Amino acid sequence: MNFASDNAGPAAPRIMDAMMEANADHQMPYGNDPFTARAVDLVREVLEAPEATVHLVATGTAANALALSTLVRPWDAIFCHHDAHVEVDECGAVELFAGGAKLRRVPGADAKMTPDALAEALAEIGPRDVHSVQPGALTLTQLTERGTAYTPDEIGALVEVARSRGMKVHMDGARFANAVAAAGISPAEMTWKTGIDALSFGGTKNGCLGVEAVVLFRPDLDWETSLRRKRTGHLWSKGKYLGAQMQAYLEDGLWLDLAGRANAAMTRLMAGLGDVPGARAVSPPAGNLVYLELPRAAHARAVAAGVKYYLYAGETPLEGPPDEPVRCRIVCDWSKGKDDVDALLTLWRG
Amino acid sequence: MNFASDNAGPAAPRIMDAMMEANADHQMPYGNDPFTARAVDLVREVLEAPEATVHLVATGTAANALALSTLVRPWDAIFCHHDAHVEVDECGAVELFAGGAKLRRVPGADAKMTPDALAEALAEIGPRDVHSVQPGALTLTQLTERGTAYTPDEIGALVEVARSRGMKVHMDGARFANAVAAAGISPAEMTWKTGIDALSFGGTKNGCLGVEAVVLFRPDLDWETSLRRKRTGHLWSKGKYLGAQMQAYLEDGLWLDLAGRANAAMTRLMAGLGDVPGARAVSPPAGNLVYLELPRAAHARAVAAGVKYYLYAGETPLEGPPDEPVRCRIVCDWSKGKDDVDALLTLWRG
Amino acid sequence: MNFASDNAGPAAPRIMDAMMEANADHQMPYGNDPFTARAVDLVREVLEAPEATVHLVATGTAANALALSTLVRPWDAIFCHHDAHVEVDECGAVELFAGGAKLRRVPGADAKMTPDALAEALAEIGPRDVHSVQPGALTLTQLTERGTAYTPDEIGALVEVARSRGMKVHMDGARFANAVAAAGISPAEMTWKTGIDALSFGGTKNGCLGVEAVVLFRPDLDWETSLRRKRTGHLWSKGKYLGAQMQAYLEDGLWLDLAGRANAAMTRLMAGLGDVPGARAVSPPAGNLVYLELPRAAHARAVAAGVKYYLYAGETPLEGPPDEPVRCRIVCDWSKGKDDVDALLTLWRG
Amino acid sequence: MNFASDNAGPAAPRIMDAMMEANADHQMPYGNDPFTARAVDLVREVLEAPEATVHLVATGTAANALALSTLVRPWDAIFCHHDAHVEVDECGAVELFAGGAKLRRVPGADAKMTPDALAEALAEIGPRDVHSVQPGALTLTQLTERGTAYTPDEIGALVEVARSRGMKVHMDGARFANAVAAAGISPAEMTWKTGIDALSFGGTKNGCLGVEAVVLFRPDLDWETSLRRKRTGHLWSKGKYLGAQMQAYLEDGLWLDLAGRANAAMTRLMAGLGDVPGARAVSPPAGNLVYLELPRAAHARAVAAGVKYYLYAGETPLEGPPDEPVRCRIVCDWSKGKDDVDALLTLWRG
Repeated sequence: MNFASDNAGPAAPRIMDAMMEANADHQMPYGNDPFTARAVDLVREVLEAPEATVHLVATGTAANALALSTLVRPWDAIFCHHDAHVEVDECGAVELFAGGAKLRRVPGADAKMTPDALAEALAEIGPRDVHSVQPGALTLTQLTERGTAYTPDEIGALVEVARSRGMKVHMDGARFANAVAAAGISPAEMTWKTGIDALSFGGTKNGCLGVEAVVLFRPDLDWETSLRRKRTGHLWSKGKYLGAQMQAYLEDGLWLDLAGRANAAMTRLMAGLGDVPGARAVSPPAGNLVYLELPRAAHARAVAAGVKYYLYAGETPLEGPPDEPVRCRIVCDWSKGKDDVDALLTLWRG
Repeated sequence: MNFASDNAGPAAPRIMDAMMEANADHQMPYGNDPFTARAVDLVREVLEAPEATVHLVATGTAANALALSTLVRPWDAIFCHHDAHVEVDECGAVELFAGGAKLRRVPGADAKMTPDALAEALAEIGPRDVHSVQPGALTLTQLTERGTAYTPDEIGALVEVARSRGMKVHMDGARFANAVAAAGISPAEMTWKTGIDALSFGGTKNGCLGVEAVVLFRPDLDWETSLRRKRTGHLWSKGKYLGAQMQAYLEDGLWLDLAGRANAAMTRLMAGLGDVPGARAVSPPAGNLVYLELPRAAHARAVAAGVKYYLYAGETPLEGPPDEPVRCRIVCDWSKGKDDVDALLTLWRG
Repeated sequence: MNFASDNAGPAAPRIMDAMMEANADHQMPYGNDPFTARAVDLVREVLEAPEATVHLVATGTAANALALSTLVRPWDAIFCHHDAHVEVDECGAVELFAGGAKLRRVPGADAKMTPDALAEALAEIGPRDVHSVQPGALTLTQLTERGTAYTPDEIGALVEVARSRGMKVHMDGARFANAVAAAGISPAEMTWKTGIDALSFGGTKNGCLGVEAVVLFRPDLDWETSLRRKRTGHLWSKGKYLGAQMQAYLEDGLWLDLAGRANAAMTRLMAGLGDVPGARAVSPPAGNLVYLELPRAAHARAVAAGVKYYLYAGETPLEGPPDEPVRCRIVCDWSKGKDDVDALLTLWRG
Repeated sequence: MNFASDNAGPAAPRIMDAMMEANADHQMPYGNDPFTARAVDLVREVLEAPEATVHLVATGTAANALALSTLVRPWDAIFCHHDAHVEVDECGAVELFAGGAKLRRVPGADAKMTPDALAEALAEIGPRDVHSVQPGALTLTQLTERGTAYTPDEIGALVEVARSRGMKVHMDGARFANAVAAAGISPAEMTWKTGIDALSFGGTKNGCLGVEAVVLFRPDLDWETSLRRKRTGHLWSKGKYLGAQMQAYLEDGLWLDLAGRANAAMTRLMAGLGDVPGARAVSPPAGNLVYLELPRAAHARAVAAGVKYYLYAGETPLEGPPDEPVRCRIVCDWSKGKDDVDALLTLWRG
């Protein structure tokens, strides 16, 4: 059993079918194919944003770095949460794509920043101070790196602070589907209706092989983004294989079905956690990812049975007092069913 | 019929089978999976280079830019043919990845440079001249952009010039399989045995969906390349889908079978060209790509029948004297059979 | 009176004499002149580092960015204090020069970091974690941005933490002369003898027109630094005007005389501060710069008399309760004498 | 005697006087001083461009790279002459400042390009071709690297080609004063009135210590340029020393007086060259720089007497047939008088 990441699971059957279908014939390269065209249309439809620019890439790091690089200049600061993926898990990709722009970290519990914390970080930059980097963009992760979520009101309040200094706002939606499925609001309400300018619309973690849509609610940036995608090596010659994934992902609501399954597995896990003595969620999960504390002995049983998941900060400390809590990150991908969850709970309960 | 590019065709069935197989189960992300491990082993085996570092990416532009960026410093010049893909078709990707390194163009017929032309270009840079960019790397394309090939002796002579100024040598092998299949020499003889330091080992154009191996015959650059791949957004979370392609591609010589088919189709096309009045190859093709001159009327018949291929430099000039030659680029991918070729010839013959 | 910055004062007479002398004749350009040669020799002599590489530039930002860029790779993190000049006052110059390297901020009172705080910041980066930026360099400012200083033991302890992760260490010595003059230890003890790899050796703030020496205690980086200096536009054609300044600055200990004067002015200011009701130094000054709290009324009197200095964080709040403390930064340059200091104290005392 | 470069000579006395004057008192740093303010006004006045943005830097490489970086995006091509300083003598500075933009070389006799040659180079880039770098800017050098000049009509014709592809136009005016003094037209006619968008207005080579004005005939780019200047380390803290130079340089037409002297020395040299057997100018000089062929024996006599100048491409070949021509570059700076020129001619004549 693998609860290490939603990157560890298989792609959904309908996604694989679409790959086979795309393979059946010749198509003109570089995204000039009907699969990509349909995928772009569907992204716009799902987001109720007919003018949005949409560019497909294969990785989340590429999507984030590409999106942010179009929103800022090289001498700008991009404000992100202290634990944001762009800051801690992308090896400086944003800095590279954005010509050396600086990331500034904003603290906050549960991997969420508050408007006050953002305002304080912004206050470091005086008006028209040539010595300082300039206010460039805000980036939020939804679901956050800790599995929590921002409400539309919370997003709106952060956007307001960002706008007050002329900044654009990006959403890292690697788990956007899980956030939307859980929140019961529309993708538009979670994005451009609350002021989001750019979205990394993730597919990879939620049942695709590798596809993300870089969405800019800014038609004027279309050509620039095309050039940036090519220049970073992310324009596929056989673009149909990206288009086919995204098309199938969005067709008939598959993306929300898959996310709903993953979220349901997490809900079941949380419900059963009460029966694991000494276990508790560090933050209440909004979707399919949670940080847990559980007794070392419980953890050791799962490891012994071959279950895979990551411990927070470093190696698995199997040695130590059996009752001492260890912190782990559990992620349910779309393929996790009731039985997987129950089996894990059983191991933990001992 | 589509002779526009080897990017336009389908992936080979065994490649698609491998994708399905990789999808069957969970695997740890970021290339820590058995498919990738096996692919890396096979690349080394095929190249007889057990110490080579191998990193998989999805596009040829990424492979070239990544490989070259590890060989040079930002103040270096990279010497390439005037028509090289890195110079004219990658939107400055090498410059981005390599921190602003400069490409210097070397002229030469049939998209090949001579040692003398390279030496002349290098002579512009004086010894220890701080005002000039510095000699960094040479990059050769094999097959070239015009479908010709360098012999090992030709490569060796260019390597010698490059080495005399302390430069490393890279091979853009987007059509490496076609070159190897046609030349009848080993992949090792075409690369490190003649002094190549880095190879973009292409899979995409020859029957894969999208996979290239960045091969460095320099074990010391392994970690740097890993970081560069991550930083440019080219490390896949679900790395198994890259690994599966490359594994299937190299297993049991599939890569050479596919290239052999494409080359055979081109051979058949060349053989039949003599029967098309007014048609001639601009350069003798070494593999699966050729630049042709043919009468406008012949071209017009093919276009009218829906055949797709590119005209050299710009739009299809359907208007004009019917006997006037037009220049076109014809590429056979692995899926082109005898019938496709004959059908095209028939259209051209009229 | 101007206590705003040591950048606001004049150059010392002997520096100006040297400029005139350098102007008297023709010299070969780009630093191939006897003034530069002598300056380089003197820097090495003063630092007891005969093998050190020395490159002259005109600004402190250039010196810092150039020095750091030679110590790191683009995917590295550079650790600096939260308030470091490189982070808050150089508009992303380090990021540009270093190809997008990331600055990570380390907190600490009085603009100084502790080994524990550095270790904690470093602990964020796991061993061989491809997702993260890598440990690259530590940079310390001496005097710090708050006018405090690190002792050699404190530097040594930080170097030890840095070395444990393979990092190089840079010292931003914009006020290096003031630090050395105050500490009564040798320049060597303050730098390479405690493990510093690179030094921005400042001249501008201490009586020169505009000159800083980029010193690397690493002979192997000489040529790379030369190229980086040229490439960033910091190689002067009439290099003799940089050389002449640095030569005169170091000849016969002028640099320490000038710094000694500035420090003495600050000492006198501190001594007299006890007689200014409600005034106090926020951090005890180690050299020629201090952050003070003083009553608004006292501040208002100085402003009214035309004295110039900066208030901490923003505009001068002349309105408000007269006894409420305001925070200001006071800097004494070499030209400040007893009378200037006494006049300021008199204004503050009212 | 030194005819190697106009960088080898002294600064003019009035420039040195201005430096002393600027040193007399305290001034606020970073260009907020009356010398800089006056210099900016004078640049605008001289160019009849009251809205132009003006930023002072210390080197020509910085001026060129800064100016060009504001005119293009990182994926653009900058077209320059094959021998342009930005291409062959700035170690990739433009590439660094412009985020990896590519320089494309345009051939042409006497270091000048023709509209046809430019159009041909531009034709390589198709309309809306995402694979290619994009048309960004044209840069012309005036005087050229060979000492020739473009007429306003020639500039206008090149601007027209550039404009047809949406490109901006920059002039590298390292020897702008010599060009203006020789042409007898106004600075405005040579620049914005013929369509120049940005000018590197040189002072260093013509009697200053080190100062160039980055002039943009685009008020909207003022703030961006300020940030770029800071970020590249070219904002001086003691900005008054740049301002003082430029102020004195432009006051009362000093700049044209100095250039007139240098040009007159060259005119005298050309007039006397007819009496040196076997000597000839390779290109007719428009200002103060010329490439000459002269017999080896003549050259050897000058070298033996200690005269300094550069031979074209490499080391001085003192060995060889005495009548064989050698190629050298001769530059007269403002300080060269009749006697210097005559002394050189006498040595050559033997």
